[in-house]
Amino acid sequence: MTPSSGPDERVLLARAYLSAVVEPPAPALLRFVEEHGPVAAADLVAEGEVPRAVAGEVEARRTRVSGAMLLEQAQRCGTRLLGPEHGEWPAERMAALARATNMGLERLVAPVALWCRGAATEVLTERSVAVVGTRAATGYGENLAAELGYGLGVAGVGVISGAAYGIDGAAHRGALAGGGATVAVLACGPDRDYPAGHARLLGEVAERGLVLSEYAPGTPPRKHRFLVRNRLIAALAEGTVVVEAGLRSGAANTAATTDSLGHPVMAVPGPVSSANSAGCHELIRSSGGILVTGANEVLEVVLGAGEAPEAQHGAPQRSTDRLDGPAGRVCDSLHFDRPRHVEQLVPETGLPERTVLSCLAELEMSGFVSLGEEGWTRCKQ
Amino acid sequence: MTPSSGPDERVLLARAYLSAVVEPPAPALLRFVEEHGPVAAADLVAEGEVPRAVAGEVEARRTRVSGAMLLEQAQRCGTRLLGPEHGEWPAERMAALARATNMGLERLVAPVALWCRGAATEVLTERSVAVVGTRAATGYGENLAAELGYGLGVAGVGVISGAAYGIDGAAHRGALAGGGATVAVLACGPDRDYPAGHARLLGEVAERGLVLSEYAPGTPPRKHRFLVRNRLIAALAEGTVVVEAGLRSGAANTAATTDSLGHPVMAVPGPVSSANSAGCHELIRSSGGILVTGANEVLEVVLGAGEAPEAQHGAPQRSTDRLDGPAGRVCDSLHFDRPRHVEQLVPETGLPERTVLSCLAELEMSGFVSLGEEGWTRCKQ
Repeated sequence: MTPSSGPDERVLLARAYLSAVVEPPAPALLRFVEEHGPVAAADLVAEGEVPRAVAGEVEARRTRVSGAMLLEQAQRCGTRLLGPEHGEWPAERMAALARATNMGLERLVAPVALWCRGAATEVLTERSVAVVGTRAATGYGENLAAELGYGLGVAGVGVISGAAYGIDGAAHRGALAGGGATVAVLACGPDRDYPAGHARLLGEVAERGLVLSEYAPGTPPRKHRFLVRNRLIAALAEGTVVVEAGLRSGAANTAATTDSLGHPVMAVPGPVSSANSAGCHELIRSSGGILVTGANEVLEVVLGAGEAPEAQHGAPQRSTDRLDGPAGRVCDSLHFDRPRHVEQLVPETGLPERTVLSCLAELEMSGFVSLGEEGWTRCKQ
Repeated sequence: MTPSSGPDERVLLARAYLSAVVEPPAPALLRFVEEHGPVAAADLVAEGEVPRAVAGEVEARRTRVSGAMLLEQAQRCGTRLLGPEHGEWPAERMAALARATNMGLERLVAPVALWCRGAATEVLTERSVAVVGTRAATGYGENLAAELGYGLGVAGVGVISGAAYGIDGAAHRGALAGGGATVAVLACGPDRDYPAGHARLLGEVAERGLVLSEYAPGTPPRKHRFLVRNRLIAALAEGTVVVEAGLRSGAANTAATTDSLGHPVMAVPGPVSSANSAGCHELIRSSGGILVTGANEVLEVVLGAGEAPEAQHGAPQRSTDRLDGPAGRVCDSLHFDRPRHVEQLVPETGLPERTVLSCLAELEMSGFVSLGEEGWTRCKQ
């Protein structure tokens, strides 16, 4: 159970107990653990020897939780506990939560531990982007989320999402299809397949990525847990893309947290008539969200312009687009069928005769115009 | 022909001649006219007594143009000439072009005169917005352009566009339907119904707004004239909205000019799969374009947040959305059918018993929960 690089059993037992004894977010407990270390903190909590602020967070459960039972339960469902003592702990990303807490955003406190189903914990410290959005997605939104997930997966960038129906599920599936790693962060214990219809998807995510949660095995999903969970999605990713979201939505909450953590918020536009795009448009309009239309643009934001594969910008040039200034004006004044003379072109273009003549010579050399017996005509390109 | 407030016949004749003797933009001629006044400038041009730079602009046509004939032709088609000597001249908006010219953007030089079909010249100095976009618009784009035009018309804000098929035409029509004024700025003489399919629309615009052009009556449309014309659309409006545009498009050109003149550029988003929205997305992504989804948001940008009618932001609140913090957690842990006891709620919510009890009391008073013989349940709202 304990990997060679990990902490000893006493620390694991303490972290398991501490992670379940509170309902996150629990800023007072986290400060207490930092002060005393997990083992001493767990003992003090179990004995009720804690300051008033911590007592408020732990009183309800302190005699009802057993670290040993939770670790046993976790082992049965292929889940392991990850804490700051593990080498795989995403220390840098969790530090963003600590900074936010220190700035007064107590609800953004770091978790005491993470329960992980799946072995690919390295994905937690590799490059990654959160792709989130509404459960009630349109086909447009689901296709885009899948394409984004795929493009990020192909580029070797992890996709972090919440495993919900709609956008989240499509993003995870796209990432898997692109051969990338993906992380599902749950609002319930990592052993609960929630939503039930995504049981198989969660199995695949655990196999090739990671299903994780700060909620101990057995914890049921609850409405408020989704909002609390969102801070982990925002913190674990280097930036968040909102694909489709209404004006009031969990995705907008994840975006706001992403912004509070100093990471870039991106949003995909859609038809202005779609309520599912209204939240995205509002993020771009009022909250500094960056408009993105595909995976390349997301990579540009997260990796920086230099490292992202070059996006296809600019339409192909049409041949006569290269003509500007006087030559363009002369060319515009000629027809494909009816030949014209220089004497007509001078007043028509408003150019001096010598300019018209030199333009015609230039255009003829480039094959744009030709001189026939009855005058000048344009050539088909 | 000459309104009482306008300049005398000699000035009109001179401006008519000067407006047709060059192919705009003509920075050297404009400087020459500013220096000598229109009457003396026209005489000197006709006699060929001009500096070399001016000669290059006027040589081709100086003996071929007659101001008197143009004014006669204009009168026949219900068109009058407007110059800086008229009270209706949009002096302030033309000053933006002069400033741009002084900063080295010579192609943005002001016109020598404007040929106007329609009597509503006051629209040139009233509040107005340019609504532009691709000819090959989708139904989505045309509907949006019409709605924008309508909303601006209802708000008493003029709609300026280029009378082309697609977005332009829909914007003009929307403005007329909203009872607003609208201005069609042409890339040919104001007497030419271009495009031909918009002859009736142009008639309506002239009746209730203004069809105008810097090109003298009889001038045919030419490709380069559309780009030259775009600077007038950008200058006459207080801001430009691009509804649908490809990556390379006339609308993108108008937007760039709008930006050069220091006016706000707005763009409407659309499906990322639509090539017709790619130009809009690029404006928002890379050029500081403001994302707008409807007329209210356009008015907010142009009139300022205070003066615009309040936009409908935020979705309606659901009753339990008001519950956050401990009360929300307690409410989340209750069911509609299966009653629960306080002893279950304490570990479930992680809240101390006294907090659970006070939350239940609060929730019961608000009608969210009720206590039955077997425990607490949620109430249907």
